[in-house]
Amino acid sequence: MHALVERLYPLCRSITGDGVRRTLEIVGESVPLRIHEVPTGTEVLDWTVPREWNIRDAYIKDASGARVVDFAESNLHVVGYSVPVSATMSLEELRGHLHTLPDQPDLIPYRTSYYAETWGFCLRESTLAGLPEGDYEVRIDSTLADGHLTYGEHVVPGRVPDEVLVSCHVCHPSLANDNLAGIAVATRLARRLAESDPWYTYRFLFMPGTIGAITWLARNRERVGRVKHGLVLACAGDSGALTYKRSRRGDAEIDRVVRHVLRTSGRDHEIVDFSPYGYDERQFCSPGFDMPVGSLTRTPYAGYPEYHTSADNPDFVSPEAMTDTLETCWEITRVLERNHRYLNLSPYGEPQLGRRGLYGSLGGRSDTKQAQMAMLWVLNLSDGEHSLLDIAERSDLPFATVADAAQALRGAGLVKEKGK
Amino acid sequence: MHALVERLYPLCRSITGDGVRRTLEIVGESVPLRIHEVPTGTEVLDWTVPREWNIRDAYIKDASGARVVDFAESNLHVVGYSVPVSATMSLEELRGHLHTLPDQPDLIPYRTSYYAETWGFCLRESTLAGLPEGDYEVRIDSTLADGHLTYGEHVVPGRVPDEVLVSCHVCHPSLANDNLAGIAVATRLARRLAESDPWYTYRFLFMPGTIGAITWLARNRERVGRVKHGLVLACAGDSGALTYKRSRRGDAEIDRVVRHVLRTSGRDHEIVDFSPYGYDERQFCSPGFDMPVGSLTRTPYAGYPEYHTSADNPDFVSPEAMTDTLETCWEITRVLERNHRYLNLSPYGEPQLGRRGLYGSLGGRSDTKQAQMAMLWVLNLSDGEHSLLDIAERSDLPFATVADAAQALRGAGLVKEKGK
Amino acid sequence: MHALVERLYPLCRSITGDGVRRTLEIVGESVPLRIHEVPTGTEVLDWTVPREWNIRDAYIKDASGARVVDFAESNLHVVGYSVPVSATMSLEELRGHLHTLPDQPDLIPYRTSYYAETWGFCLRESTLAGLPEGDYEVRIDSTLADGHLTYGEHVVPGRVPDEVLVSCHVCHPSLANDNLAGIAVATRLARRLAESDPWYTYRFLFMPGTIGAITWLARNRERVGRVKHGLVLACAGDSGALTYKRSRRGDAEIDRVVRHVLRTSGRDHEIVDFSPYGYDERQFCSPGFDMPVGSLTRTPYAGYPEYHTSADNPDFVSPEAMTDTLETCWEITRVLERNHRYLNLSPYGEPQLGRRGLYGSLGGRSDTKQAQMAMLWVLNLSDGEHSLLDIAERSDLPFATVADAAQALRGAGLVKEKGK
Repeated sequence: MHALVERLYPLCRSITGDGVRRTLEIVGESVPLRIHEVPTGTEVLDWTVPREWNIRDAYIKDASGARVVDFAESNLHVVGYSVPVSATMSLEELRGHLHTLPDQPDLIPYRTSYYAETWGFCLRESTLAGLPEGDYEVRIDSTLADGHLTYGEHVVPGRVPDEVLVSCHVCHPSLANDNLAGIAVATRLARRLAESDPWYTYRFLFMPGTIGAITWLARNRERVGRVKHGLVLACAGDSGALTYKRSRRGDAEIDRVVRHVLRTSGRDHEIVDFSPYGYDERQFCSPGFDMPVGSLTRTPYAGYPEYHTSADNPDFVSPEAMTDTLETCWEITRVLERNHRYLNLSPYGEPQLGRRGLYGSLGGRSDTKQAQMAMLWVLNLSDGEHSLLDIAERSDLPFATVADAAQALRGAGLVKEKGK
Repeated sequence: MHALVERLYPLCRSITGDGVRRTLEIVGESVPLRIHEVPTGTEVLDWTVPREWNIRDAYIKDASGARVVDFAESNLHVVGYSVPVSATMSLEELRGHLHTLPDQPDLIPYRTSYYAETWGFCLRESTLAGLPEGDYEVRIDSTLADGHLTYGEHVVPGRVPDEVLVSCHVCHPSLANDNLAGIAVATRLARRLAESDPWYTYRFLFMPGTIGAITWLARNRERVGRVKHGLVLACAGDSGALTYKRSRRGDAEIDRVVRHVLRTSGRDHEIVDFSPYGYDERQFCSPGFDMPVGSLTRTPYAGYPEYHTSADNPDFVSPEAMTDTLETCWEITRVLERNHRYLNLSPYGEPQLGRRGLYGSLGGRSDTKQAQMAMLWVLNLSDGEHSLLDIAERSDLPFATVADAAQALRGAGLVKEKGK
Repeated sequence: MHALVERLYPLCRSITGDGVRRTLEIVGESVPLRIHEVPTGTEVLDWTVPREWNIRDAYIKDASGARVVDFAESNLHVVGYSVPVSATMSLEELRGHLHTLPDQPDLIPYRTSYYAETWGFCLRESTLAGLPEGDYEVRIDSTLADGHLTYGEHVVPGRVPDEVLVSCHVCHPSLANDNLAGIAVATRLARRLAESDPWYTYRFLFMPGTIGAITWLARNRERVGRVKHGLVLACAGDSGALTYKRSRRGDAEIDRVVRHVLRTSGRDHEIVDFSPYGYDERQFCSPGFDMPVGSLTRTPYAGYPEYHTSADNPDFVSPEAMTDTLETCWEITRVLERNHRYLNLSPYGEPQLGRRGLYGSLGGRSDTKQAQMAMLWVLNLSDGEHSLLDIAERSDLPFATVADAAQALRGAGLVKEKGK
């Protein structure tokens, strides 16, 4: 995953343009993507697909002709969606177009201006401080023209058309944790799921933030109802603890499943309530859609000093952290996949388990007692009201133990599946 | 307000009689009152309006003819509703009619006997201890005769007939906190509301405790359903922290609004559950009416040593405390007035706020970020289920910020009012 | 009660056989029992009544002919339901049939093997350690043959056919706390209830564990719906604190009543959630029946080191502990019996209690203030929704005070009973 992050890092992504296209091409080498190109001007919900932005070069040259700020060094140097400019102006005049981080003088900030026509440069405060008065040559070789908004979809087919959505944004330029790590984890998760013959159909969305999600929602209104669970993946690679942000519903199955996985895994973690800010859960959880979609990050949105600066580089994300995020996602799918409701077919008194060899069949395992308790719990609560997750939580047993017990009881004809 | 307390303090009030009439006259100088006179013998719910009690003079004279206990010094000296008496008797015989506070020997207690025909004097334990044996002349120049029960109403008309009730008792003689301070706060609140063009109609009741509330309820059964919120105001001027006692329902809007105001104001306060004891919330919250009426006091009913003694005098209440109670009441009405439900008219995805100048329109304010978050919260939760108070509580934002955001969004046509 | 424990202690009980019959005979001397004999092979729910087991003698003799393990010393020495055996074998061969407690070397364990044909002896680890190699004569003079399963029922008739079930298991041999103490408490409770002219019909079940409860349920399916509350009594005599295990429902009236009694009694106690393990609540609370039956023990199932060993002898249970359990059961029935719903017939405002002498009628009691508050609470909450237990819990008053207040108000015609 870290190699993918490093390979994607130099590309200049924005909400439209060739940086996104190239990113999706590279992701497509790992998992096949269906690429959508939506023309500028298309009305999507309350929004309109903007003009496409591309950039080739940009710099500020001092009197000596030296590039004191250079897009080639870092694509963060240019404010996203800057209109083209080619001019010479005094430092005084230029200042209105310069963005720095006075509190982090050696970092380049990340800034965009998608919907107001302007241009600007981002640079280190320390660079700015060293610029003498005088005239500077300023050039941004960009185009802002009718074109397309691009996003990619990858589907892992399941046994049922009910879907699990995994979404990550692909619109940030050279920022590693936000969100190349999320892209890398989603890609690897998709590959692992493809090998697992899943129950659910898994839909992976690689889209620009906000306008991408809005575009997808506008074009997939009929699909929304099929999405039973969803996760927005972002900031998946920093060294912080995992953070799960609940869906707007707060008690959706995905919310309960992620809580169970995080709690029983022993991982440090935090669970926070939904708020209408952050990543694309804002769109999925708008009141008209109100989808059961939560957001999984490590340190959350805007929660670390490297956030939206040049310090969010590949060194900031670790293979270990990305693996941990991936494993957590995988465990979440393990619970989602198996979280069925069963019906006890012998609900009057306990059935005689010994006669069916259900005690014996477990005798050789070291966790026999837990396995037996799990069987008793599954029998007791499989009244059609309780899911296996409900049973795991009420019994304080690991989900997998409960699911294994349900499988053994089903094998013995004592319970039948009643659906999700 | 303190001047009003001092002016009302010397009057000898009871549940009927000229003391109440004179009190309402004085209150009427500040806010116009409609005065109701309900004849003795009128059946009101389970009760009957009692005979009217008036008193001109009362004393105990010792052998030398000196008044050792004198109504002219304090009207607390006579047990409320004492029947007339004119007799000479030994101290021994007299003792059965004397009430003191052995633990507070320098204070006169307050006692009444509305529904059992008797008479008595209240005096300092220290006075009693100094009385020599011997005969005493005892005289109470009172009348207990058919007459009327008197109460006053003041209405601040609103834009809707739905009412907010503010009730305070006017039946206690020279006791400042209980309840002249409440009367003063209610009077001032009424005046301020009159200048505010309120949404709700506000009905202020100045009534004798228990029998007054019962009389009002008996005569206004059809109005009860119109009362959407209510507060019983008492003990509004002592130096203790504010105490809110919930309505019988416990989760009425008034309960939630007062809690929100107290919490977000940073004031020390206490919130206690309803109990069927205290002031007239007992009647408003009887199960047949079950009105959404809570009670706001500073130190609650019977909770301070000066309670129902001569130490509850004008020095015991402070202008600052009364102002604080008044401001709290005012803030409560501010939330009640604006606590509407809205409907997001663009509920699919976030609407594009920037295009509508809704970010810019707030740009000049220092609380821009809060204001933006408030807009996102209002949009996200305005599904017809959530009131602005719900949104303020869930978002942990001040109610006013949320209400301002709703107003801005309404101005932009993004939400519409859906009612209270 | 302790005398009964001592008298029952030596009998060799199992899930069938003469030990149970003799036990029920002795219990029957205190309370008349209806004895049921259910033939071997009868199908009961998912189970079949097993063959009847009886035993006359059993021993292991060493080479000298001395009995090194002797059934006559303790009936725990033989694994319950051991098939007959008469053989001579080496210690090596014998070991596979011997059960000890290595961690409690001086105690005999209790073991059974109802549904797998085998035989075995239980003995002290210290005894086993002292056995020299060599041949041993082994004999178990038991019979395992078609017969009956035996259980007893005692009914205390009430004014209504609705039932309260009290169940205790009678299948353990010489184990005092588990469950002779439970049998003793149930017997005494039944006698006390019989003298109390109860509202409910009380049904006491003295049955072998698991198969007995399953048999009773199979034969009383139509009666299950009549059982409004139930308690499984076990481990009723050890020195530990009382433990109540909730019914599967968790919020059944019995659950709330027991919690109230334990909390307000000031007794140390613990309340634990239902789990599908333990005593016959497992059967009563199987999902098909889901009866409102909890379990009352002192130290719970398997929670003390003497559990299922020869140390659970009559010295382990105390008269004081059994009396405390009995009193708790009695108090539980006191609340169950009186926990009615009432309807305030004068729900608009407070009724005038003074005129009806309801203040006076209580004036002589030291708990007058509580009694008055209880009347106000009963009036306020008797809207048909709240039971007296609800009122006691909301008012934080003792149940009996609330119930007495309801009775006084009913006497005055202010409330009427609305049913359980």
